[in-house]
Order: sequence, then structure tokens, then C-alpha cells
Amino acid sequence: MSSAKKVRTQPPYELLYWPVIPGRGEFIRLVFEATGTSYKDISNESKDGINAVLACKDDKLTVDDDGNPPAFAPPALRVPGEGKDGKSLVLYQTPAILSYLGDKLDLAGEDEAEKHWVLSHALTALDLNNETHDTHHPISVGAYYEDQKDEALKRATDFRENRIPKFFGYFERVLKGNEPQGEGKHLVGKKLSYADTTLWHVLNGLKFAFPKEVEAREKDYPLLFESFYTSVQERSGLKEYLASDRRQPYSNGVFRHYPELDRQ
Amino acid sequence: MSSAKKVRTQPPYELLYWPVIPGRGEFIRLVFEATGTSYKDISNESKDGINAVLACKDDKLTVDDDGNPPAFAPPALRVPGEGKDGKSLVLYQTPAILSYLGDKLDLAGEDEAEKHWVLSHALTALDLNNETHDTHHPISVGAYYEDQKDEALKRATDFRENRIPKFFGYFERVLKGNEPQGEGKHLVGKKLSYADTTLWHVLNGLKFAFPKEVEAREKDYPLLFESFYTSVQERSGLKEYLASDRRQPYSNGVFRHYPELDRQ
Repeated sequence: MSSAKKVRTQPPYELLYWPVIPGRGEFIRLVFEATGTSYKDISNESKDGINAVLACKDDKLTVDDDGNPPAFAPPALRVPGEGKDGKSLVLYQTPAILSYLGDKLDLAGEDEAEKHWVLSHALTALDLNNETHDTHHPISVGAYYEDQKDEALKRATDFRENRIPKFFGYFERVLKGNEPQGEGKHLVGKKLSYADTTLWHVLNGLKFAFPKEVEAREKDYPLLFESFYTSVQERSGLKEYLASDRRQPYSNGVFRHYPELDRQ
Repeated sequence: MSSAKKVRTQPPYELLYWPVIPGRGEFIRLVFEATGTSYKDISNESKDGINAVLACKDDKLTVDDDGNPPAFAPPALRVPGEGKDGKSLVLYQTPAILSYLGDKLDLAGEDEAEKHWVLSHALTALDLNNETHDTHHPISVGAYYEDQKDEALKRATDFRENRIPKFFGYFERVLKGNEPQGEGKHLVGKKLSYADTTLWHVLNGLKFAFPKEVEAREKDYPLLFESFYTSVQERSGLKEYLASDRRQPYSNGVFRHYPELDRQ
């Protein structure tokens, strides 16, 4: 497998995100990798890159030198030349970045209806991502898991029993409704969108975090797991990326494997 | 005060949301009201309207007669004539609906940079909305508050002490950075956007849900509470709406007043 990036286009997109973990930055990486788009993963590629991440979310920042607002939290995307008066544009919030890149990289459907469905489905997949996070941090994002473990056991039980089937069932129905065009491989229309890459990563993360729960359920959602999940990860661009050392392993981010939170 | 709607434009937008509560549907209502746009609040305006809400999120629906995917949850927006082949378009997910209407109703800034900042800030305000919800439902959205009250007390404490100042401080900085153009009245640029209406409603809801906490803190965020909050609610369109019987009172939705969760 090649670990070299394919290079297709300018502008030189810069991802501002924490190093090492996949985290929410991964949703942005996947759209670049799926389209062979050159980008700079700034904190993973340069020693001082973390400083740019910290700077865009600095608690004292009101507006940056290029006229951009501060980021509430990473990920952020910097696009030199695309901001006010030819300066750098900085965007934050994963769905906003995906919406921007979806238009630029042709990952947002074929017309206005599809464009908005893609955003809707990506937001729903990101809601599932966020609910996964809250299984291990149901009380405080700033406290240790060990200090909210009792509550985490309760929240994870509800998540596994009620929320996972609700989300999986929803996406199975979307794939079914779009099957005449998408053949079970795409949520919207005939081609890959950022809704597909976003949902794929959440499913991949859930397989890591809740392996027993997902294994017990996946046969109930054949389009989602047999058709969609396998076809997305085999796509040119994504396949090479997922086998490369640019794909960061899960650790202590959104998707964590605590066996006690999984199905027993 | 008039309780009649101003009427400006077609198409005949239809909001599909639960009756009686403000809920997430309120973010959509506010953009219509702020722009004097005609819309049908279907479950509040017609006896059978609730059936359309239930139908768009039906657990068996894969695709509707007009080619739209099911909604994961309300709110949804139906726009007759704007879908595939001149059929009805149905969108779901609050930020996706706001993004769509922002373009149509001129509430999304003046250029591409501003458009994406508006979406980013609206998403952040909606994150605060969602975290507010989780203060009374930290374990299970499907269970009663009374059955998760111990955990709610812990989560609400963290929310009040850590999350509220983080979000308020962030928006204060955004208003400060944009002050040369927005004069403390707008998050982005020179004019009203759906980021403004969205943040306003979340602040209004927090004043209802956590009155002591907000009162104790608001002096620390003068642009947010003295300039921004008061100016948005005085705007033509919004002012009349907020005084009308179309504005639903808070009850058992996202924003609930449980005195025990507020600052003691």
C-alpha cells in the first residue's frame, strides 16, 4: 500500500486539529483523502503545528489578523486566499467545514435537494458521534471517565439498547429508500458524499468502542453493514488512506473501548 | 401588538414540528418571523397537522412520495415545488434547515466567508441548546427527569460552572471581534443572520431555565446581554412575534425550569 498522498488541487487546505487522535478532525481528513485532495494536517505534519491549533481557539482571541472569528473548538480549516480581501479564511465546526468542502470537492450531491440531504444526514451521523462521546462522559467533559463511571454505565446501557438501534434503523431506511440510485452504497443519489464518509467513520468507531454490541446487531441492518460500510472503505483514496500511517489509531478520543460499557 | 403574520413571499414554507412547545422548531420560526416570511406552522395551525409530523419521521418510511428521505426527528421543512421534478422538498435537521433558509431569506451574511461563519456560530449556539437539554436528561432521553435527577444535579452543576462561561465567553469575544461592523448587535458582519436569532433564543431559554445563574453572570458579558440580546428582540418582526400568541411558552421541552438545577 502506498502511504503517499495523491495531489489534485489547490488551494492549500490546512486542517487545524489536535495531533495523534482521529477525533472530529477525521471527518475532515476523510473528505480530502476520498477525493485525492492535497491538504496539510498541520499538527501531525509539523513540530510547531499545535501552536496554530491553540492560537485559533485562544481564550483571548476576538478576531484574527485576517478578520476571522475565533474557533470555539477544533477542528478548524484554514484556506489561504479564500477569505476577506484575498486573506486566509478560517472556518470551524465540523458540519460547517464539511459543508464548505462538500461544495468545493464535489461531495455534496448533484442538486440543491441532494446538497441539503447530504448535510442533514451528516449532521445525524455527527449526532451519533456525539452521543457516543457522552457514553463515557455523561456528566462532565472536563472530568475523568473514572470519576463518572457509574453514570457512564447507565448512559451506555441506554445508548446501546435505545439509541444505537434508532440510528442504525434510520440509516438502513435511508439506504433502502435510495437503493435504486445508490445501490446501498450511498445515502444520497448516485455518488459518494461527505454524509457517506462521515457515517462510515462513526460506524468504524462504534465497532471499535462497542464491538460486542455492533456484532450482535449488524445482521439486522444488511444494507448498512454489508453493502454501505464495506463499499465505502474499499473506495480508491480511502482504501489507501486507511492502510497508511496517516490514519491514526483510536485511543482516548470520542471512540474508546471500555469493555464494561459494551454488551456483556 | 398585532398577532397577524406579515406576508412577504412564496413558496409556501411548511414547518413540521411538534405542537405547543417552542423546542427546536423555534429556531426555524424565528427566521420566518424576523424576515416577515409567510409560513405554515402545520401542527399548531391545523387539527390534523400532527399527522404530517408523524408521517415524515415514521419508523417504516424509507422514501416519501416526492422522493425525500425520512426525517430522523422533527423539525422538518417542506417546500412545495422545490424538490425533485418540481415536487415537494423535505429537509430535516435544524442546522440544515437554517442553512437552506438562510440563503433564501438573506439571513446568511454577505459573502461566502460570512455564510460559513454564520453556520459555524449557529451550530455552536445549537450545541449550547443541546447541552442545556442534557442537564435534565443526562442518562436517557427516553426516561423521566425524576428517574435521572441525581445525575442531572451533577451535570447541571458542571454545565453552570464550566460550560455556560465557556459559551458566553466565546460569543462575547465574537461580538467584540465583529464590533466595528456589527456594533455588538450581530455575530457576523453588518446585518441580522440566523446565527443571531438562534443564539438569541438559546439565551432566552437559559434565562428561563437557569434564571439565577444567568443573572449572576450576565454583567460579565456586556456585549452579549446588554447590546446583542436586547437589540435582537427589539427588531421589527421579532418584537411583534414575541408579543404574539404564536410564541409558545416554555414548558417540558429543551428549556425547563427546575429550581434545584439552578444556582443555589
